Amino acid sequence: MSFHRKDTKIYRGQIAYTPELGKLTTIKNGYIVVESSKVKGVYPTLPKEYEYTPVEDYGNKLIIPGFVDLHSHASQVANRGIGLDRELLDWLLVYTFKEEAKFSDLCYAEKAYSEYIKLLIKNGTTRAALLGTIYRESTELLMDIANGYGLGAVVGKVNMDREAPEYYIENTDQSIIETERFIHNTIWKYPLVKPIITPRFVPATTPKLMWALAQLADYYRLPVQSHLSEDKEELEYVKRLHPEFKNYVSIYNYFGLFGQQPTIMAHCVYLSDEEIALMARKGVYVAHCPVANFNLSGSVAPIRKFLLAGINVGLGTDVGAGHAVSIKDVIWQAIQASKVYELQTNHQYKALTTAEAFYLATKGGGSFFGKVGSLEAGYDFDALVIDDSNILTIHPRTISERLERFIYLGDDRNIIQRFIAGRKVNPLTLSV
Amino acid sequence: MSFHRKDTKIYRGQIAYTPELGKLTTIKNGYIVVESSKVKGVYPTLPKEYEYTPVEDYGNKLIIPGFVDLHSHASQVANRGIGLDRELLDWLLVYTFKEEAKFSDLCYAEKAYSEYIKLLIKNGTTRAALLGTIYRESTELLMDIANGYGLGAVVGKVNMDREAPEYYIENTDQSIIETERFIHNTIWKYPLVKPIITPRFVPATTPKLMWALAQLADYYRLPVQSHLSEDKEELEYVKRLHPEFKNYVSIYNYFGLFGQQPTIMAHCVYLSDEEIALMARKGVYVAHCPVANFNLSGSVAPIRKFLLAGINVGLGTDVGAGHAVSIKDVIWQAIQASKVYELQTNHQYKALTTAEAFYLATKGGGSFFGKVGSLEAGYDFDALVIDDSNILTIHPRTISERLERFIYLGDDRNIIQRFIAGRKVNPLTLSV
Repeated sequence: MSFHRKDTKIYRGQIAYTPELGKLTTIKNGYIVVESSKVKGVYPTLPKEYEYTPVEDYGNKLIIPGFVDLHSHASQVANRGIGLDRELLDWLLVYTFKEEAKFSDLCYAEKAYSEYIKLLIKNGTTRAALLGTIYRESTELLMDIANGYGLGAVVGKVNMDREAPEYYIENTDQSIIETERFIHNTIWKYPLVKPIITPRFVPATTPKLMWALAQLADYYRLPVQSHLSEDKEELEYVKRLHPEFKNYVSIYNYFGLFGQQPTIMAHCVYLSDEEIALMARKGVYVAHCPVANFNLSGSVAPIRKFLLAGINVGLGTDVGAGHAVSIKDVIWQAIQASKVYELQTNHQYKALTTAEAFYLATKGGGSFFGKVGSLEAGYDFDALVIDDSNILTIHPRTISERLERFIYLGDDRNIIQRFIAGRKVNPLTLSV
Repeated sequence: MSFHRKDTKIYRGQIAYTPELGKLTTIKNGYIVVESSKVKGVYPTLPKEYEYTPVEDYGNKLIIPGFVDLHSHASQVANRGIGLDRELLDWLLVYTFKEEAKFSDLCYAEKAYSEYIKLLIKNGTTRAALLGTIYRESTELLMDIANGYGLGAVVGKVNMDREAPEYYIENTDQSIIETERFIHNTIWKYPLVKPIITPRFVPATTPKLMWALAQLADYYRLPVQSHLSEDKEELEYVKRLHPEFKNYVSIYNYFGLFGQQPTIMAHCVYLSDEEIALMARKGVYVAHCPVANFNLSGSVAPIRKFLLAGINVGLGTDVGAGHAVSIKDVIWQAIQASKVYELQTNHQYKALTTAEAFYLATKGGGSFFGKVGSLEAGYDFDALVIDDSNILTIHPRTISERLERFIYLGDDRNIIQRFIAGRKVNPLTLSV
């Protein structure tokens, strides 16, 4: 008999995860051994050395990795499902900026951000790349709240110093100073919540600001997130502002915001092959936001093309253009979008399978956060326990079929337990 | 003071309905007066004559028309959210027919159909055009169950006598005899549930059977439902079987199954302008099934084109290719699909607005059932009471915005009361 660390936990259930794109590993009545925050191993039968460690038995319930949301505007939570009859630039002016301007008020920010973070946890998101607003203080509050609920996140104070309404724009120098202050205040403050450099997108940030943000990212070794090629009107806009560049990607790249540090670019709908090749070479992540793409302009991103090029892809809700907070719903919309893309390309680019889309929602986006998004040994134990008894009717189903049915038919009621980095979290109580 | 019929009921709340395509009527703190099964009138202030009639006050909750599902396979309830990596004809063989074959067993049928009808009621469907299977007895059971829960429905025994697997096919004469027996057994049996003639689709029904079914529809004055032009492979298949016809529509029309009686055709993705014109002339309904179209092949139907041609359009879940049972979810997917179509046609055909898609989901499909799908005077009182307090957060919202948010963000939990033809129904107890 051997003795184990006191912080060893063992969970038993019907296990499913995707160690690689398109490969779904399932273990019937399997065991997950967790030491502190990390998975020690996953086993079909419990190794003898653990025979005296108590097992938390979830019976016939599914245990799957937590969901990773690679792109969402926390400040847009109240705008979800409103005014979706408009296109991107119009939408930004009429809805987005007006809502974000309210976050200069910390009291309002606390209300909205608390609601948002609770929704994330409730719907099984365990890691997220979030955008706040241009206001430093309320963005720091968002990080406090995320940390309070135990969420893992990178959070950006948004930078924008041009082409925005007067009531919601920054002075360039002030934007840089506030960003550095934001970094100082937050970089070492939380175990799972970190700052991320967040120029809104090329049209809203001057070359000087982009250059300065790249310097900050480089100096503090911080990741970067932004938007890229979401809409045709936006492309024209970027071309008008920067006729000196050959394409959209080369602007970010020139200013040092394209993979010089780990980088997420949201949307990426209309990219040339040259841009895609650079994206792959620089290891830039695509945050695929199919719900928002459908809602705003009916567009579909060429995800199969990205995957074939070796690009890292994760899924994003893109709240508020995306109405869904749940990455589970983004999974099936990603599959639908990939079918539209397959048909549009006359079957040249095959649709995503469920296992592939599930990978994108977990390990695909999770790898941006380190060893996150899988239940393999060495990974952070981010997991959900799924009680699908209300949809598991009539026929017996395999674990893989049950996962598929949860994705298409389930909702937050089916998620009965959530773990982030080994700790239980829940949307009703602060964890910290 | 005047006296009123004892069966007069008055409901108060935040009222929304669409008297015509694209026009949303909203009444703050309005009153709906219902006499027996029908709406007598909707008023912003209660007419003096009703001052002594008690009012059922739903306070700040929304009151909207019930949802109409114009196309769904009741027998596919257990197949939802499974195996969506396949295309139509493949899917039919691997999943659909095998599942339907189980409905020769009445015990199995009772279990599955009860679950399905409960799901419909739970999700706010008040009228539905349903397909059973080729088995008469279990299809009659489906009608019993629908009637038992108070649902309004037309229900079809499916006919198929060719190009189907041996274990799930009918002999032509037997199919005709059984259909006439089905009609006799059900035509006068229920107040709100009626039979509908249901050839599966051209590939699965011989000319003799199509002709005979048209005769039955004509003799008994029964409506007709079938599938039309869902998938490109299917089009090729129909062309191979019937090279003597110029197009798909003309086959149904030749055999008398295209508007000679009120007719619903599901999908209608790939129709020529000539076919669309005939459809308009014959008053044939399109059951638009965007969720199923996305799921099976990534296709989008040209709904704006249909509406401009004056065609009647309703929404269908198309369970099981459609995973959603809720027409609410079909509404926002219909809007998404229309945005894809707008983009594909370079903005020639404008996307649906929320008010337009809501019309399709209520009065659009409802008109197939008579005066159904609106809260105007003379309409059957089919209605839902929506408690959106969990999504009505932070900002005050107009009734129209609240309706939009319910459509995008709500679920069955928000539906707290359901009326069908004036009567309260609920998914937990039999109403009859």
